[in-house]
Amino acid sequence: MLSFESDYIIGAHERVLEALIRTNNEVLSGYGNDIHTKNAENLIKKACGTPESEVFFLTGGTQANAVVISTMLRNFEGVISAKTGHIALHEVGAIEYTGHKVIELDGIEGKLPTKNLVSYLETFYGDENNAMMVRPAMVYISHPTEYGTLYSKDELCELRKICDKYGMKLFLDGARLGYGLMSRETDVTLHDIATLCDVFYIGGTKVGALCGEAVVFAKGETPAFFRSQTKQHGAMLAKGRLLGVQFEALFEDGLYFEISKNAIDRAEELKELFNSRGYEFFLNSPTNQQFIILTNEQMESIGSKCRFGFWERLDENRCVVRFATSFATTKEDIETLSRII
Amino acid sequence: MLSFESDYIIGAHERVLEALIRTNNEVLSGYGNDIHTKNAENLIKKACGTPESEVFFLTGGTQANAVVISTMLRNFEGVISAKTGHIALHEVGAIEYTGHKVIELDGIEGKLPTKNLVSYLETFYGDENNAMMVRPAMVYISHPTEYGTLYSKDELCELRKICDKYGMKLFLDGARLGYGLMSRETDVTLHDIATLCDVFYIGGTKVGALCGEAVVFAKGETPAFFRSQTKQHGAMLAKGRLLGVQFEALFEDGLYFEISKNAIDRAEELKELFNSRGYEFFLNSPTNQQFIILTNEQMESIGSKCRFGFWERLDENRCVVRFATSFATTKEDIETLSRII
Amino acid sequence: MLSFESDYIIGAHERVLEALIRTNNEVLSGYGNDIHTKNAENLIKKACGTPESEVFFLTGGTQANAVVISTMLRNFEGVISAKTGHIALHEVGAIEYTGHKVIELDGIEGKLPTKNLVSYLETFYGDENNAMMVRPAMVYISHPTEYGTLYSKDELCELRKICDKYGMKLFLDGARLGYGLMSRETDVTLHDIATLCDVFYIGGTKVGALCGEAVVFAKGETPAFFRSQTKQHGAMLAKGRLLGVQFEALFEDGLYFEISKNAIDRAEELKELFNSRGYEFFLNSPTNQQFIILTNEQMESIGSKCRFGFWERLDENRCVVRFATSFATTKEDIETLSRII
Amino acid sequence: MLSFESDYIIGAHERVLEALIRTNNEVLSGYGNDIHTKNAENLIKKACGTPESEVFFLTGGTQANAVVISTMLRNFEGVISAKTGHIALHEVGAIEYTGHKVIELDGIEGKLPTKNLVSYLETFYGDENNAMMVRPAMVYISHPTEYGTLYSKDELCELRKICDKYGMKLFLDGARLGYGLMSRETDVTLHDIATLCDVFYIGGTKVGALCGEAVVFAKGETPAFFRSQTKQHGAMLAKGRLLGVQFEALFEDGLYFEISKNAIDRAEELKELFNSRGYEFFLNSPTNQQFIILTNEQMESIGSKCRFGFWERLDENRCVVRFATSFATTKEDIETLSRII
Repeated sequence: MLSFESDYIIGAHERVLEALIRTNNEVLSGYGNDIHTKNAENLIKKACGTPESEVFFLTGGTQANAVVISTMLRNFEGVISAKTGHIALHEVGAIEYTGHKVIELDGIEGKLPTKNLVSYLETFYGDENNAMMVRPAMVYISHPTEYGTLYSKDELCELRKICDKYGMKLFLDGARLGYGLMSRETDVTLHDIATLCDVFYIGGTKVGALCGEAVVFAKGETPAFFRSQTKQHGAMLAKGRLLGVQFEALFEDGLYFEISKNAIDRAEELKELFNSRGYEFFLNSPTNQQFIILTNEQMESIGSKCRFGFWERLDENRCVVRFATSFATTKEDIETLSRII
Repeated sequence: MLSFESDYIIGAHERVLEALIRTNNEVLSGYGNDIHTKNAENLIKKACGTPESEVFFLTGGTQANAVVISTMLRNFEGVISAKTGHIALHEVGAIEYTGHKVIELDGIEGKLPTKNLVSYLETFYGDENNAMMVRPAMVYISHPTEYGTLYSKDELCELRKICDKYGMKLFLDGARLGYGLMSRETDVTLHDIATLCDVFYIGGTKVGALCGEAVVFAKGETPAFFRSQTKQHGAMLAKGRLLGVQFEALFEDGLYFEISKNAIDRAEELKELFNSRGYEFFLNSPTNQQFIILTNEQMESIGSKCRFGFWERLDENRCVVRFATSFATTKEDIETLSRII
Repeated sequence: MLSFESDYIIGAHERVLEALIRTNNEVLSGYGNDIHTKNAENLIKKACGTPESEVFFLTGGTQANAVVISTMLRNFEGVISAKTGHIALHEVGAIEYTGHKVIELDGIEGKLPTKNLVSYLETFYGDENNAMMVRPAMVYISHPTEYGTLYSKDELCELRKICDKYGMKLFLDGARLGYGLMSRETDVTLHDIATLCDVFYIGGTKVGALCGEAVVFAKGETPAFFRSQTKQHGAMLAKGRLLGVQFEALFEDGLYFEISKNAIDRAEELKELFNSRGYEFFLNSPTNQQFIILTNEQMESIGSKCRFGFWERLDENRCVVRFATSFATTKEDIETLSRII
Repeated sequence: MLSFESDYIIGAHERVLEALIRTNNEVLSGYGNDIHTKNAENLIKKACGTPESEVFFLTGGTQANAVVISTMLRNFEGVISAKTGHIALHEVGAIEYTGHKVIELDGIEGKLPTKNLVSYLETFYGDENNAMMVRPAMVYISHPTEYGTLYSKDELCELRKICDKYGMKLFLDGARLGYGLMSRETDVTLHDIATLCDVFYIGGTKVGALCGEAVVFAKGETPAFFRSQTKQHGAMLAKGRLLGVQFEALFEDGLYFEISKNAIDRAEELKELFNSRGYEFFLNSPTNQQFIILTNEQMESIGSKCRFGFWERLDENRCVVRFATSFATTKEDIETLSRII
């Protein structure tokens, strides 16, 4: 059945798969000490334009969030996130499991408004009892957010300034980074992100890989014994090549960007299609996740021919659903959809 | 200088101190295996009217919260609290340090409204993705709250029903429980609390003891090897007698209630005094903590003669401050205050 | 260069890779909710001969150890292991990171002697102060061990009896389980393991997969909300199919056993070869890891033509090294080696 | 009944109690922000002869161990201890609960032999796979040890050198420090300890206080936001005065040393007594804990008239028991004992 359920319903992009096949019989050292992993690191640093960066590969987004945050914070420090942030809502408390509070602030359409951030920080630093409170030491943002929205370059610069002022790290969860970078409405480049963030990751799982996220310590300030710490988290693969080879394929010849663009092009067509048929959008998303309001009847009739993600019930009669395109969505998929809705 | 800064500015109530003096040279076993501790346990069970309860003594409130919550929750479970709850705001993330999320809901004047609780739970259980979320397994309330307010018996019953419906434990932080029980505006008895909660504690530190909180597992459902677990938390005193003797003194002859009443009587006089002089209250508190709005000028002039607690800035011109009475506040203190404000 | 460095130097077995290729474009739900994963679970239960078992897939051994142990133990409980056990020595304290003590006992050639286990338990339960000690609640063994050795069926039965007597779980780390099962010197079957252990895992990473371990809760006593808990550990893959498809391939038509046998056959040839040339073995291993004593000169001359693992220095003149065969080792590899040593 | 069960069977020393009585009605700020606490800090720094030191008060030994170790170690670091060390054996895994491994080495009579320490470290640093292991970052010793034994100044200097060489902190658990300092067989002064250790604590609970340990960061290298971190551990008392007043009393006029000397004098008399009656000692302890071997018959006959601590069974016929003197033991107690044994 046609499916826009998520951006992880297909295996790997064919060129990623080919790389795995091609290198399968090479004899390589374990734990990421292989030439493909080294090459992938270098390709990513080059793509970022920040040679001082250090790159590490982990298998998934929640793992990346937990490892990055817990290795960068001290015991008494917490991370600030929008309430809808993945770490706040959809990781079964993986951050708290490592001992750290996620300080939740109200967001808007998935984004953390600088106004709310500043207001929180001013209250915290103005409170003479703040020695009894978790100290904010990191700001977590996702880009694209869980609602498909994006920060502008100005907004990222503003967040950077606030982090500098209050001695905090800026961490960008890029589980869907490719789709953000190739959005038609963004002015943010990968270089911008590598320059503005302390740490971020480039999502592979949702952008063409079988699994894998590339964590970039942008300024080279990698936590001490970081590889040992990934092992401690159960996050180190014996066959590290699995991640290295895939990211090598994704960052050779710009494949990552090319296939991200495909998702965006299809998403724009999907948007146009729903728009032209008079559907209402829950919010305006410039990336590969589109949130559309369906009546119960539409849910049923479309749902019988095409899978999509349920998001939330709006009222008795209507729901918000998500249609996600991906590196693998084809023009034919959109055409098929046009005959369904 | 006259001080209403908090309810822990004086040592112990004299009868508590006398008990320590009287028993000081008794040869007693350690770790709470002494007759005074046993006696204190029995006196508390009697006061609660729930012989099936089990009682344990810990040294302070944050310790009690962390030990109780972390021993009652499973790894993937969280505790619901009002945003202003002590565990959410003023314990440096002690709960998260044990690996558990504090699920923060909007409160009103320190209380957790059942409406917000139900709304959260319905959303959680209505969400088909809730396997990715921390499971709510306990409701934390403070009584009196951090703002001196109290739940009515009806409200506690309502919370109990919700907890039963959703399979959650009800935990009441009674760091200032005596002041709540002796409030002139409450319909809640100690027996009600022991009947309605799964676990709660009777605060000693702020009600006549040098230190100590009596944790009551009301239905006798004490976590396995609870004493071992208190040791693991560094919460077991070698000279457990220190806590047993104090609570024995507090619950023999109703001293706990008598001295709590003193704080309430003084608080009512203080309220009347501020009222009669035309001061504005931030909210109506029926217990020993009174939150009053002072102008900057009043802050300065009163502050030069009397200590009080700073709460928060309201606007450029005005602040909220806290005046707390306690077991040790005298009629003379109020009279002195009447000459100051 | 010829390499016997480890059993994870090659990618996947070709039939595993083919399965990934064949299923790559199938549209499948995420998080392991796909038909291949379900099928793999069933194939494994069938291979175990224990339909009541429940199977889950994780990406690596350290992760499997940490997730299994931390979800099965209560806060105050610890896991017993030989000092040389992987969890005790080579996982950067991953178990302690989850809050649990690894109780280390002296082992012999990687195995945990029942004598040492019983002696420890009798001391523990004979100590009237054991409420101050971590309670032993699980026995961890690896099979094959880190030294390639195996437990006999009698030994496993004995461990089971001890666990039953003392109310402990028996957990078998089978990172190299296939090589143990196909050893020429074992009397232990997969069914035995599934019958005798509470939980164990069938290693894929070192036996033909790119990554992946199949955790089997043999008696169906899976920890509550186990999938949520894997998410909390950052151990859930969005594209769970990656693991499901691989294990489906490994357990269809007995591939797992067939390729494990290959490693054993090659290991026996390798043993014979070293034996025939007069090399001394550090211990007698019946599985794919062979520990051989080399002089410094041999280290250098062999090392220039063939990679192997360094284990430990024995004395000034001699070292212990490891030669590991795997699913991918060929007869030609052994022949090449015969011309080197 | 006469009791040598432990050194925490009596309340406080009378002068400590008097200080609590005398200051009870003083109005003081909470959380250790009071003049007595400040004064106690200064008195201790003076006694140490290290003005750069920083002093904090906690309530008990396990708490002090857990707070100190977990705030000084990074996630991937562990603490080395003799197997018999309190943190290794008798704290229900309190250190592991904070996420850190206790690296246990064989000890001798409670002490950690430098030989074993060096051997472990050389193996660790000689192992090219040590990135997979917990990094040793602290050495924990108790002084007196759990067996009453003491390190010589030379041994402490040697430990310091090893710690310096390998970049480790030296932490001395002084739960019974007074009894060590006043031993007739020691050449170690408080100043030596303050000069040689990075951190240590001066035990109050077992030396005259109702509760309390004075943690000394000897070189002033206190962990960041240490007070916040004690709060996070539930280790901060609202009425911090309870600890400050007691330690003020203990370190004014050298009370701590005077009463420690009493315990030593009584212990020497006790030793002589047992010696003169032909009893066998389990080991030679120069401090207040004496370990004596009793036959089953002696156990029973003495046990019916005098309490002592059971240590371990030696063989079918004999046990090791502990007789502990303390600040409160009198000459009369020894005389009574002489009529019993």
